[in-house]
Amino acid sequence: MGPLEGVKVLDLTRAVAGPVCAFFLTLMGAEVVKVEHPKYGDDTRHFACQRNGVSGQFVALNRGRKGITIDMTKPEGQELIRKMVPQFDVLVENFQPGTLKKWGIDYEVLKEINPRLIMCCMSGFGQYGSMSQLPGYDIVGQAMSGIMETNGWPDGPPTKVGCLIGDQSTGMTGLAGVLAALYSREKTGKGQLIDISMQDVLIQYYDIPTYTLLGYKGGRTGNRLPTIAPFDTYPTKDGRWAIIACANNNLFEKLCSVMGKPELAQDERFATNPKRVENVEAMTEAISSWSKRFTMNELSGLLVKNGIPTAPIMNIEEVLNLPHVKEREMLIELEDSTMGKVQMVGSSIKMMGTPLNPYGSAPKLGEHNEEVFGRYLGLGKDEVSELKAKEII
Amino acid sequence: MGPLEGVKVLDLTRAVAGPVCAFFLTLMGAEVVKVEHPKYGDDTRHFACQRNGVSGQFVALNRGRKGITIDMTKPEGQELIRKMVPQFDVLVENFQPGTLKKWGIDYEVLKEINPRLIMCCMSGFGQYGSMSQLPGYDIVGQAMSGIMETNGWPDGPPTKVGCLIGDQSTGMTGLAGVLAALYSREKTGKGQLIDISMQDVLIQYYDIPTYTLLGYKGGRTGNRLPTIAPFDTYPTKDGRWAIIACANNNLFEKLCSVMGKPELAQDERFATNPKRVENVEAMTEAISSWSKRFTMNELSGLLVKNGIPTAPIMNIEEVLNLPHVKEREMLIELEDSTMGKVQMVGSSIKMMGTPLNPYGSAPKLGEHNEEVFGRYLGLGKDEVSELKAKEII
Repeated sequence: MGPLEGVKVLDLTRAVAGPVCAFFLTLMGAEVVKVEHPKYGDDTRHFACQRNGVSGQFVALNRGRKGITIDMTKPEGQELIRKMVPQFDVLVENFQPGTLKKWGIDYEVLKEINPRLIMCCMSGFGQYGSMSQLPGYDIVGQAMSGIMETNGWPDGPPTKVGCLIGDQSTGMTGLAGVLAALYSREKTGKGQLIDISMQDVLIQYYDIPTYTLLGYKGGRTGNRLPTIAPFDTYPTKDGRWAIIACANNNLFEKLCSVMGKPELAQDERFATNPKRVENVEAMTEAISSWSKRFTMNELSGLLVKNGIPTAPIMNIEEVLNLPHVKEREMLIELEDSTMGKVQMVGSSIKMMGTPLNPYGSAPKLGEHNEEVFGRYLGLGKDEVSELKAKEII
Repeated sequence: MGPLEGVKVLDLTRAVAGPVCAFFLTLMGAEVVKVEHPKYGDDTRHFACQRNGVSGQFVALNRGRKGITIDMTKPEGQELIRKMVPQFDVLVENFQPGTLKKWGIDYEVLKEINPRLIMCCMSGFGQYGSMSQLPGYDIVGQAMSGIMETNGWPDGPPTKVGCLIGDQSTGMTGLAGVLAALYSREKTGKGQLIDISMQDVLIQYYDIPTYTLLGYKGGRTGNRLPTIAPFDTYPTKDGRWAIIACANNNLFEKLCSVMGKPELAQDERFATNPKRVENVEAMTEAISSWSKRFTMNELSGLLVKNGIPTAPIMNIEEVLNLPHVKEREMLIELEDSTMGKVQMVGSSIKMMGTPLNPYGSAPKLGEHNEEVFGRYLGLGKDEVSELKAKEII
């Protein structure tokens, strides 16, 4: 039994950011009804990891949902949404701001129909503010939050983060908003509107004090941090790179001992973290000239034994083959109704009392039309067929 | 009034990941009591953005809390924690797994004292699994989740993401766990243990189907995605880089129209997203030879007018100077009791019914010892002084 057993979610999300939020609501045991356009469905169906006519990203993000179709550009489609809203606790969406208002299904309208409704709107730039109408995508958010400017190497170009940091973090932030509102509603009896902007979220991820206090505008520092040292990659004898990270004096002293140079920890250039940051070149030279005397395995062994945070850099295959990752069920096999057997990521939220269930199958386009319109609106098979013939669903 | 008004949180977190979780619990209106070591305090106090003896990162992450000191390595300190636990709803921590057990304050012990306690443990590799004992830091999580391997350029080295993606996302995931458990407790009356691993969280951020379905091991693709095209940076006449992102045929058709080449959208090499991914070089050449005829401003104007997602790449100063960012209160000025006036990031979770408050001041080390030990344990001034003299607090 998940923590959200009994909660009903109307899911108008598409692409990635919104579905990440709805994904965890689903895994938490809510009944999540996903609404797609009757003709195209969600854009992610057409992403490039195709099998049996659907993409892996769609299945990854949308498993466990009930899937229905509604053409929300048509008045009859909009009316279907308004009729369903009284029976739902939560509505999540990530259309461009203004879209739902145009369709007559924005919060101002829906709260009159259901004052207990919790509505979470996720977008590139938020529901208000002079840039709110701009379309947003992960890479747009990264570019306009300072993240791309600070990702990469000093002598290279601004670089997109190698995963969908904007989408994923926006979805997780929306999730926190929905969950907090569900708790709050238990106390107040009232729903509310939540406004999540990808740009806001990525600004929150940015280390703002480096700018407001140091005036540092975020040039790229490769694998270093401007605030902690040592916290970098160091060469090994076999041509690999090892992470070594010490965020306090105690760990740095241990490292100096392991290096056989305990006196370095007392050296005034390296005695405190701010000093080590100031003298990072000299410190890096000292560590590198030591680290490259060992292979990755030898170095790892030495550092782990002494409790110093370290890691080799792994590709995803190496990661997913770690027994640890299997023990934590982070790579699971599930049976999807379209794809068949497929390997997907498990749940990163592990709640021991109310476990999450990541094993659902993703809906085919409109798969649950009869079930959902029957159960929530009392429509019969013929009425559903008629809506379909009229291309409303 | 925040959504968590009345909730009490005992905050044993340090460094960044744990405090991100506790930060939002604080902004949501919970009373959050942060416990620090009496001598050193949190490592983030010593990060390199110093003013008046404290770092900006500490203030950024820990404002709004009550601050107390307890030496949890001492039996008397451990007893203080056990005595306080019955009065708290939530305990959050991010020590290395096993540490709290050693101190006699792990979940097995604490749930006997308070069965309603929600305890969220955040760590590098989680509370169970063969690698759970390894120390974790942001860069370690990035290295051992495939993220570093996929971040950067094909001809360059694996690259750390330019912000603390591991810490931030682990904190946000822990936050979601705590909030779901609070909601669930309203229904069941029971608390529970939540186990968040940074490695799990970053695997969740990774686009796993690219590996499980395409067998793609995550070599670095610079500013491209392996699943969507166009979704990249393109050159402008004035030597800058513009983002152009189209995740569906409709947007790509619009782009081709703006380029004055509507026939490209029908070209069989580019007619669907999987086709565009397959023929990305030819498509990139077509877009780039067009984009470089315009300055960044001209190009932005053209694309925005036609509803095509685009962006210039901004540094953090340009971002924070946008009127939009000020309108959304993402850069705020607050009065910190140690730093004085300082600019900090606002709240990326905007809840219209129960607004979050990001204006708190960070505690000095042990600032609220008398108040908290008095209120929660009924200790008088003299007793608090005695604990201090014995270096227990």
